[in-house]
Amino acid sequence: MVEAKARAVWEASRRLAQASTTAKNAVLLRAGRMLEERKAEIKEANARDLEQGQRDGLSKAMMDRLLLDDKRIRGMAQGLEEVAALRDPIGSGRAMWRLPNGLEITKVVVPIGAIGIIYESRPNVTIDAAGLCVKAGNAALLRGGSEAISSNLVLAEVFADACEAEGLPRSSVDIIPVTDRAAVMAMLKMDRYLSLIVPRGGAGLIRTVVENSTIPTLKHDRGLCHIYVDEGADVGMAVNIVHNAKVQRPGVCNAVETLLVHEAIATVALPAIVKDLQKAGVAIRGCPKTRETAPGIAEATEEDWDTEYLDLILSVKVVANMEQALEHIARYSTGVAEAIVTQDYARAERFLAEVDSATVYVNASTRFTDGGQFGLGAEIGISTDKLHARGPMSVEELTSTKYVIRGCGQVRE
Amino acid sequence: MVEAKARAVWEASRRLAQASTTAKNAVLLRAGRMLEERKAEIKEANARDLEQGQRDGLSKAMMDRLLLDDKRIRGMAQGLEEVAALRDPIGSGRAMWRLPNGLEITKVVVPIGAIGIIYESRPNVTIDAAGLCVKAGNAALLRGGSEAISSNLVLAEVFADACEAEGLPRSSVDIIPVTDRAAVMAMLKMDRYLSLIVPRGGAGLIRTVVENSTIPTLKHDRGLCHIYVDEGADVGMAVNIVHNAKVQRPGVCNAVETLLVHEAIATVALPAIVKDLQKAGVAIRGCPKTRETAPGIAEATEEDWDTEYLDLILSVKVVANMEQALEHIARYSTGVAEAIVTQDYARAERFLAEVDSATVYVNASTRFTDGGQFGLGAEIGISTDKLHARGPMSVEELTSTKYVIRGCGQVRE
Repeated sequence: MVEAKARAVWEASRRLAQASTTAKNAVLLRAGRMLEERKAEIKEANARDLEQGQRDGLSKAMMDRLLLDDKRIRGMAQGLEEVAALRDPIGSGRAMWRLPNGLEITKVVVPIGAIGIIYESRPNVTIDAAGLCVKAGNAALLRGGSEAISSNLVLAEVFADACEAEGLPRSSVDIIPVTDRAAVMAMLKMDRYLSLIVPRGGAGLIRTVVENSTIPTLKHDRGLCHIYVDEGADVGMAVNIVHNAKVQRPGVCNAVETLLVHEAIATVALPAIVKDLQKAGVAIRGCPKTRETAPGIAEATEEDWDTEYLDLILSVKVVANMEQALEHIARYSTGVAEAIVTQDYARAERFLAEVDSATVYVNASTRFTDGGQFGLGAEIGISTDKLHARGPMSVEELTSTKYVIRGCGQVRE
Repeated sequence: MVEAKARAVWEASRRLAQASTTAKNAVLLRAGRMLEERKAEIKEANARDLEQGQRDGLSKAMMDRLLLDDKRIRGMAQGLEEVAALRDPIGSGRAMWRLPNGLEITKVVVPIGAIGIIYESRPNVTIDAAGLCVKAGNAALLRGGSEAISSNLVLAEVFADACEAEGLPRSSVDIIPVTDRAAVMAMLKMDRYLSLIVPRGGAGLIRTVVENSTIPTLKHDRGLCHIYVDEGADVGMAVNIVHNAKVQRPGVCNAVETLLVHEAIATVALPAIVKDLQKAGVAIRGCPKTRETAPGIAEATEEDWDTEYLDLILSVKVVANMEQALEHIARYSTGVAEAIVTQDYARAERFLAEVDSATVYVNASTRFTDGGQFGLGAEIGISTDKLHARGPMSVEELTSTKYVIRGCGQVRE
C-alpha cells in the first residue's frame, strides 16, 4: 500500500512540476475555501481524535494541540492564502553563462519532486505542509501521528479534492491511512519515488528516520540554544533578552536553555537576571559560581548542559572568558540559535564568525529564529542540517535546480 | 580509531572555518610543491600497490587507474594550483535584509564542517578531494580503496604536512589507514562529527552508504543517459552527437547508454547512426523496429534498458512519439544527463522542461556534464541527488550557509 501510494505521488509530482503558478495558487485558495465550507465534517473527525485522546489519557497540552476549532480552521485557510501570495520560485534562473564553444548553460530552479513528510501531533501540519509542497510544485506523501489520524485523513481529503477540482491529480497530496511503525519503515525505503523525507517531531522519530531512511532527509531536531552575556554588556538589555528567550514561549526549539555569563559581570548581571526569571516562575540550575550570586538556585549537573528543557527551567554557567563560552557552545549546542549580549565590537564579530549555528545573534532574542519572523513566509520547519537548507525552511527551500543546456550540435573534443 | 580520527577532523574543521583565503591557498600550493619534491616516495608506495594488484590479478584498466607516474603526480599538483586560483566562496553573503523592528539579517556562506569521503580505485582522488575540501574551509576524513592504500597513505601524509607547514592542523585532512568494511560502517555513524559523506565508487559502495549512513550524503550514482532523436532532426548532427556521447569515452557516467529514435525518422537516421557506431566498434542492441532498419543489431531485452554499460554497447529503441520517449526516460534514467536532437522549437522546450535530470541538453553531447567542461573548476563528483547539489559539484557546493543577525536589544512580542 505504501509503495502504491509513493508511486502515485511520484506520478503526480511529474504533473505538478509542469503546473503554472496560477494553477497551483488556485488549488491553495480553493483548499482554503473548502476547509471553511467543510468545517463541520472536520470538527466531527477531530472530535473522534479528542475522544480517543481522552481515553488514552493525553496531557492537557497534547489535547490542546490536537484541537481544531473554528478559529484554527480559519487559521489554516489563512495560512494557505499567505502561501498563495508568496512568489513562486519555480522557473527562475540562478545563473546563466555561455561556454567558449557556444553552449548556453542555465541553472534553473525546479521542484524537488515527491516529498515524504512524517509528523506528530498537530493536525494543521497536514494543511501547512501540503500547501508549501504544492506551491513549490512538489507532490507530498504525508504520514501523521496516530493521535490525529481522523482529523488528518479528512484534511488530506479536502486538499486532494481541491487538487482534483482544479485539474491536478488527487495524488498531488496523499496520506498514509495507518499509523503503525511498519508503514513509516516502508516509507523510508521508497527512494525510487521519494526524493526527500522531512521528519517533524520528537527525538525518537528523528532518530528512527535518520537510522533507517535510504532517502535524503532534512531534520528538524532539538533546539538547545545558548545566550552568552559578555563582560561589559548592558545588564538591562541582558535581562530583557534572556527573559524573552526563556519565558515568552518555553516549549519551542528557539527558546534559550542555557545561559553563559562572563565572570567579570556575573555578580552584577546574574542577580538581576535570576530575580526577573524567578518572578516569572523559571527554575534556575546553576554552576557553583552562579549559585553564589543569588539565592534559590539548584545545582546544575553535567546532564543539564545537554538537556532541552522546553519548559520554565534554565541552566546557568559562569565562564572565565569568551573562549570558554565558545567551547561550551561548540560542545553542547544543537545549532539552532545562539546569541551574545555585548557592547564590544570585536567580540560581537568573533561570536558571529565562530559560532556554528543556523542563526547567530548579537543583542537580540533567539526567539526570532522562525520563517514568519524572518519574513520568509510560512515555514515547513527549522532545519538543523547543514546541507541544502539550514534554519527556517519555506517555499524556496523546497526546490532543487537543474542545468538546461542549449546547443547547435556541439560535441566534446 | 575511526571515532578518534573523526573527532580530530571535526576539531580541525573549526580552525579551518576561520582560516583566511590566503592561508588556505598557501596550503594547496605548498602541497602541490611537496608532491613533486616527494615523488620518489610516492612512486615507491605506488609500486607496492601495483605489485599487490598484480598478485591479485587486477584488470589492465584497473592497473592503469592505479598507476602514479611523473605526469600524473604533476597533474595532481596542477589540479591544486587550479583550485587555489578559484574564488573562495566562504564569507560571501547570499542575501541581506532588515526587518521592521530593525534586526539586520545576513545569509552568509560558511564551510560545511567535517566531510567524510569514501572512494575507490584512483589514488589522485585523495589529493583532489583534500584540495577542494580545504579550499572551502572544510576538513576531510578520507577512506580510499584497499587496492591503493599505500599510495593514499603517502598522499594524505604529504597533504597533512603541507597543512602543518602553513600553520593549520594536520588533521585538516586525515585518512583511515585500514580498508576493512568495519571502518566504513563506523565512519557512517559519526554524525556527531561529520556533516556530510560523499561516496564515490561502484553501485555496491553507494548502496552500502545509502543504507547505513546516519550522516547526510551526496551520492554519485550510476549514469544511464539517453539521447532522443526527434522527427525532422538533422541526421548528420544526430550521427555526430551520438558518436561523441558513446565513443569518445564510454567508461564514464555521462556517456550515452540508450538511444531513442522517433519512428518518422528511424528509417533514415538509424542506418546512418548504426553504421557509424559499428565502424567505431560499438555493439548495438535494438528493439524489433530498430533491427529492421540496419543489419548486425542484436535483440535488446528488458534488462538492456536498465543497464549502464560503461562500454562500447548501445541500446536503441524506436518510439512512436515524443511522449513515449519522455516516458522511457522518466522510467529508466538515473538523472545525470539527457539530450534531444531536434529542429523543432516547441519540442526542444518541452524536453528541457519535462526531463527531470541534473543536465538536459538540446543539440549537444551528454559528455559535457562535467565541472571542468562547465567552467566550474575541478569537481568532487557529479551529484545524482536533488538536495543541496545536483550535477557537477565543485567548491561552491562544498559550502553551507548561516544566518547572522545584528540587533540592538530586540525581543519578540
